[in-house]
Amino acid sequence: MLTSKGQNKVVVLQSDFGMKDGAVAAMKGVAVSVSSDLKIFDLTHDIPAFNIWEAAYRLEQTSRFWPAGTVFVSVVDPGVGSDRKSIVAKTKSGHFFVTPDNGTLTLVSESLGVEEVRVIDEEKNRLSSSYESHTFHGRDVFAYTAARLAGGVISFQEVGPVLESRLILLPYKKAKWNGQKIVGSVDVLDIQYGNVWSNIPKDMIDEIKVSYGQKVRIKITHKGKVAYNESVTFGKSFSDVPIGETVAYINSLMKFSIGVNMGSFAEKFKIGTGPDWQIEVSR
Amino acid sequence: MLTSKGQNKVVVLQSDFGMKDGAVAAMKGVAVSVSSDLKIFDLTHDIPAFNIWEAAYRLEQTSRFWPAGTVFVSVVDPGVGSDRKSIVAKTKSGHFFVTPDNGTLTLVSESLGVEEVRVIDEEKNRLSSSYESHTFHGRDVFAYTAARLAGGVISFQEVGPVLESRLILLPYKKAKWNGQKIVGSVDVLDIQYGNVWSNIPKDMIDEIKVSYGQKVRIKITHKGKVAYNESVTFGKSFSDVPIGETVAYINSLMKFSIGVNMGSFAEKFKIGTGPDWQIEVSR
Amino acid sequence: MLTSKGQNKVVVLQSDFGMKDGAVAAMKGVAVSVSSDLKIFDLTHDIPAFNIWEAAYRLEQTSRFWPAGTVFVSVVDPGVGSDRKSIVAKTKSGHFFVTPDNGTLTLVSESLGVEEVRVIDEEKNRLSSSYESHTFHGRDVFAYTAARLAGGVISFQEVGPVLESRLILLPYKKAKWNGQKIVGSVDVLDIQYGNVWSNIPKDMIDEIKVSYGQKVRIKITHKGKVAYNESVTFGKSFSDVPIGETVAYINSLMKFSIGVNMGSFAEKFKIGTGPDWQIEVSR
Repeated sequence: MLTSKGQNKVVVLQSDFGMKDGAVAAMKGVAVSVSSDLKIFDLTHDIPAFNIWEAAYRLEQTSRFWPAGTVFVSVVDPGVGSDRKSIVAKTKSGHFFVTPDNGTLTLVSESLGVEEVRVIDEEKNRLSSSYESHTFHGRDVFAYTAARLAGGVISFQEVGPVLESRLILLPYKKAKWNGQKIVGSVDVLDIQYGNVWSNIPKDMIDEIKVSYGQKVRIKITHKGKVAYNESVTFGKSFSDVPIGETVAYINSLMKFSIGVNMGSFAEKFKIGTGPDWQIEVSR
Repeated sequence: MLTSKGQNKVVVLQSDFGMKDGAVAAMKGVAVSVSSDLKIFDLTHDIPAFNIWEAAYRLEQTSRFWPAGTVFVSVVDPGVGSDRKSIVAKTKSGHFFVTPDNGTLTLVSESLGVEEVRVIDEEKNRLSSSYESHTFHGRDVFAYTAARLAGGVISFQEVGPVLESRLILLPYKKAKWNGQKIVGSVDVLDIQYGNVWSNIPKDMIDEIKVSYGQKVRIKITHKGKVAYNESVTFGKSFSDVPIGETVAYINSLMKFSIGVNMGSFAEKFKIGTGPDWQIEVSR
Repeated sequence: MLTSKGQNKVVVLQSDFGMKDGAVAAMKGVAVSVSSDLKIFDLTHDIPAFNIWEAAYRLEQTSRFWPAGTVFVSVVDPGVGSDRKSIVAKTKSGHFFVTPDNGTLTLVSESLGVEEVRVIDEEKNRLSSSYESHTFHGRDVFAYTAARLAGGVISFQEVGPVLESRLILLPYKKAKWNGQKIVGSVDVLDIQYGNVWSNIPKDMIDEIKVSYGQKVRIKITHKGKVAYNESVTFGKSFSDVPIGETVAYINSLMKFSIGVNMGSFAEKFKIGTGPDWQIEVSR
């Protein structure tokens, strides 16, 4: 039972299950039962309940740093038990994503490119004796199928038939130019520190030709109402400004971001995330 | 030094230690020092402090999904340093449980069946140079013994002598019939989503012959006081009712449960857990 | 590509990143990409943001329980992007510590002894294509270098040149005698249970010749103001006193500590930690 060309026995799990109960451990037990030599890691299990966008973002934030052949499992699944499909996507980068087809792959499908998507055939790829349970596909379908795929028990083709429909994607706007201003949105918070991460890529910031130490003009609005409107030092990192001061910088995903050195920008200025939170940047 | 027949080098840790300090990492370090090729996993370390019932429940929820030969360590140990015994139980299913003898095995001893219980001989199975510490048996005794057992350094017989007394069990009532009604209790919450999990097995629900889409009558009382009393749709899963509505269903452990689609039933109706929380179900 | 003499392929990660987003998973992906057969563990990622002292303490609490050759990564790094150095220390015990040079090694450098410290040469030991990111050295420098070292891709010498300056240490007072009294401070809380851990070693307590069951006099002051002043039973463990009562004991690191059986001493008496919290112990 050799590993199929492609898979590398590494499985990375993400969910909104939390770690306070046994849900994640049940998934891992199923995976270890399938193949005892898997290397199983956690991305996070603290995705806010039912928040598919954040699941999509965390995959985008991390998957590119894992080797080709890694099998990701992401279970944020408000539609469990409905007719939403269970799928495995293979990206052009050689990564696999096992997930409900509900928008979780919105970002990685664009950044990594989709090679092929298959629908999990639950006649073959479902934990036996789980047929009467309809609420925990994370354990019975996703972890089980991911372990079989990662461990080489099945090939990607044996997951099931090719998905006929288009992958479900969340609505998502990119940053764009409005005259001399860049207009984007607040994608997500860098939770632990309260930094605000926008969807404005470094390339666009390069075009306004701001150097480290110079100021950029930042305006953040929520449904049109101004939440923040200041000139801020553009730095390489937090320590480029005194403690407690605001700094604009390019984050670890090469996106324009705003933080407070040793403080929380999001908390200080009560900034939230999502398409309703618009951010404008200019010289 | 071969693995004894039975053990599979997999160790699964549970405790009420949390993950904010170094306690769990010290246990893992001891285990890796004993045997560097163990595969070590976490069940959860967020059991509420001293809550032996919840420790028992999480073992019941997950252990059956792990392969035979897996060694579970569960340390919820309010009696550390007292004369409570340190034991290893082997179940008929081939799983091992390393734990204080304080009720932690109440549920798995019944569901998996106990083959034999041995008392840890601390003269042999205790981290050397730990004799002056009396407060961290999780590290000095349980993780150490579990790693020796899982890694095949000792056989199950070498854990220590057979337990002479009966295993300590928590008082625990099963669901029963009262005329046409099933009377059970609220075992635990499905924490992350606020679903209520009862101790009423699917078999009993089958006998009242309710089909998906039909209504069941549910009454929840706390010390006799009515907390909830409604007719609820019986569904396969949450998505069988509109968002925000209540659904009764069979959970992933084949027990009767109640939830709100994309909401928290426990929070909405202020439902708690334990023997004082009674639940009655009928057509 | 053999492992250099010394390293054992075990990597233990600590940070103040939390586990709610993808930061830790990005670090692990980088490490697995470097060397797929590493054994990667978490110490904790819940160090309070920027709290270098607590990072130092958790390393001290756990590293001695891991085998020689283990590579620890600790990233509590308020100075990321500044000119603070990125280092790897090898201790006389044979452990490696990969961390910013900011005081994180204050305690282990004394307890384990430093054999040599090297500065990470970022020309060689930095994730390629990460040069434009200045805010996530945990991923780009520390995890990457640690994985290369642990996996034997580089030797300790190949980390970079020997550190010329002295290791940065946090100011830290030891417990001392004041006549018949021992004067120390509250190092840290045993968070999950609310026990207070002092910096007073068991040796000093041995000298006041208090036996189990006898009383010790304890006075805790905050900036000179008395927070607690009682005679307390000295016990082996919590269960030596009735539930709800206070007990003084020697903790799992052989330090004088105070707790409440099945309760929280720190919460009950509002005790904090740090050099401002002084503790006096006498017969």
